[in-house]
Amino acid sequence: MSGTSLTRPIWPHPTREGVVQVIDQRLLPHTLKILDLHTVEDAIEAIRTLTVRGAPLIGASAAWAMYLAACTAPEGGITDAWMEDCCERIKAARPTAVNLAWAADLLMEKVRLTPANENRIQAMYAEAAMITDAEASRCQAIGEHGLCLIRSIYDKRPQKPVHILTHCNAGWLACVEYGTATAPIYAAHRAGIPVHVWVDETRPLNQGARLTAWELGQAGVPHTVIADNTGGHLMQRGEVDMVIVGTDRTTYTGDVANKIGTYLKALAAKDNNVPFYVALPSSTIDWKMKTGAEIPIETRNPDEVRYVQGKDGDGKIQRVLVPPEDSPALDFAFDVTPARLVTGLITEKGVCSASEEGIRSLFPSL
Amino acid sequence: MSGTSLTRPIWPHPTREGVVQVIDQRLLPHTLKILDLHTVEDAIEAIRTLTVRGAPLIGASAAWAMYLAACTAPEGGITDAWMEDCCERIKAARPTAVNLAWAADLLMEKVRLTPANENRIQAMYAEAAMITDAEASRCQAIGEHGLCLIRSIYDKRPQKPVHILTHCNAGWLACVEYGTATAPIYAAHRAGIPVHVWVDETRPLNQGARLTAWELGQAGVPHTVIADNTGGHLMQRGEVDMVIVGTDRTTYTGDVANKIGTYLKALAAKDNNVPFYVALPSSTIDWKMKTGAEIPIETRNPDEVRYVQGKDGDGKIQRVLVPPEDSPALDFAFDVTPARLVTGLITEKGVCSASEEGIRSLFPSL
Repeated sequence: MSGTSLTRPIWPHPTREGVVQVIDQRLLPHTLKILDLHTVEDAIEAIRTLTVRGAPLIGASAAWAMYLAACTAPEGGITDAWMEDCCERIKAARPTAVNLAWAADLLMEKVRLTPANENRIQAMYAEAAMITDAEASRCQAIGEHGLCLIRSIYDKRPQKPVHILTHCNAGWLACVEYGTATAPIYAAHRAGIPVHVWVDETRPLNQGARLTAWELGQAGVPHTVIADNTGGHLMQRGEVDMVIVGTDRTTYTGDVANKIGTYLKALAAKDNNVPFYVALPSSTIDWKMKTGAEIPIETRNPDEVRYVQGKDGDGKIQRVLVPPEDSPALDFAFDVTPARLVTGLITEKGVCSASEEGIRSLFPSL
Repeated sequence: MSGTSLTRPIWPHPTREGVVQVIDQRLLPHTLKILDLHTVEDAIEAIRTLTVRGAPLIGASAAWAMYLAACTAPEGGITDAWMEDCCERIKAARPTAVNLAWAADLLMEKVRLTPANENRIQAMYAEAAMITDAEASRCQAIGEHGLCLIRSIYDKRPQKPVHILTHCNAGWLACVEYGTATAPIYAAHRAGIPVHVWVDETRPLNQGARLTAWELGQAGVPHTVIADNTGGHLMQRGEVDMVIVGTDRTTYTGDVANKIGTYLKALAAKDNNVPFYVALPSSTIDWKMKTGAEIPIETRNPDEVRYVQGKDGDGKIQRVLVPPEDSPALDFAFDVTPARLVTGLITEKGVCSASEEGIRSLFPSL
């Protein structure tokens, strides 16, 4: 299986029941390794260690974790109690992405709708596959809506490539296909609109440099990796036409939690009149949460800041310590960009303003 | 010579004429290595490769480079032509720091004032030592003026440490003693005011994580290393009381060129009502330049973005590649923070607004 033929980061094993396969995203871009997950604990560990990451993929992983839970139920059978216990453990794996709880709860509801003497394994499989495919469809639709925005920039001054800045990885590795922030970029590239992507390296874990650059390179999309510090200066110089980022949770009023540092780019975009878009499937909207201040922000192991992983001179993947041994560090994974800094949300239903009114206009029944 | 006993990053060799010693800042914090410079080319190479870096230190290094030029003049003697040629080569070593040309030109003027049959080596030594000591005095004065700002924050709500965010390294390693941005911090620490410093790691070259954290650790100042993406979130949470940064060149109207990413922190400070100060000796003010748009911004080798240097598991200093082999990168070293985002300038003469009026009020004759 070659790197370029992959278009999804998670899939059920094609021949073996009770096995789910994922790309180990910790080793990219230098090593493409496929991992087999056999148990709920395997899946939780994959979510917790960022082997799989990105809000939509975390949702899909939670769904497949529920399938593995059904496959590995203890002697007494696939009881509600066992599945509920698994569901709670899955939901505790990471705090910020709303998709995690959303998907796990959906599968739990399916458990309750499926009598214990029916095939709960089959029910979990069908539901997880449905959630995964639905995420892919939503991303594809996001791509089409975002394409219109890119095209309108291009049409105003054709011949020149459209320069798009993105932060972190909201590509197909983070989702289940196409990506969210990258979906419009891939759509524009396929439509023959010249695009060039400024890829924020995205410290501390460098998901931009490692994952987005890899994805774009595989797809042949022109791109340039930059330090996270650089985006503001590029905007001051007029070298950014638009920003598109993903999100891990967006409140129903349009406040956007995304990878730490997103807020700084949104401020710079505002200061330089650069449109700042957030691409998201509706599964990332938290319908119960009003403001960004309520969103729990994950803090992670400070060693993620202190060490940097890459390929050494001998081609080995290893990590190096940057600051002094005894200097402490702090590692927030996300920040919140207030709705006032967001030009628009690109959803599977269309583009809307980052406001309760805008969101409800696209999703009136939710 | 132990690490803690050092207080300057450059000095003339105590016993050997024609030798200048510097700390090799590329190897910190894991290795403290002293380098001997013997020729103008050695000094230019040290400036170009960031063995020495930071605006005031670049100025001092340029002055000592002129001393080395006098020491290594060809057979015909220390002619104006030789010294002028050296001066031009020194000034071309790096483009952004105004101190470089300022110091080299000062020494060149001294050459012209010293008849060729007098001791031009001695004259260069005396002038370089004078410039170096004057920088140290200016930094000490900056510390005293900045201390008042920190004290006034502390006095409003004593018991709690004052949280100061800084970007890059504007410490004694960047200057010739005390530092610029760090001088008020060291002064507050010595005065018994509890301070805690948020140290931006400062990609791509990590001068914050490597140098500022090392300096603060040596001095016993509490600090925490953070990814450059984090400062905005900390300000939103109310965990930053003030920002103090250095500058490589400030126009006489108060626009501030400093390490890439400074502009993003200034935007976040403004958005969260956090005071944003720039500490600078008057040698960093460009009296000929009106706006930041005129400041030449250095681009450096993209490998500075692609590779990260640190200590590996075996204790060896080495660099690792982060993005895919074939992904291009771009490396701007500085950006410009417009005066409107700067709360005040902390100079050796006092604190003033970042405006022509403010600057002229402290330096009426310049």
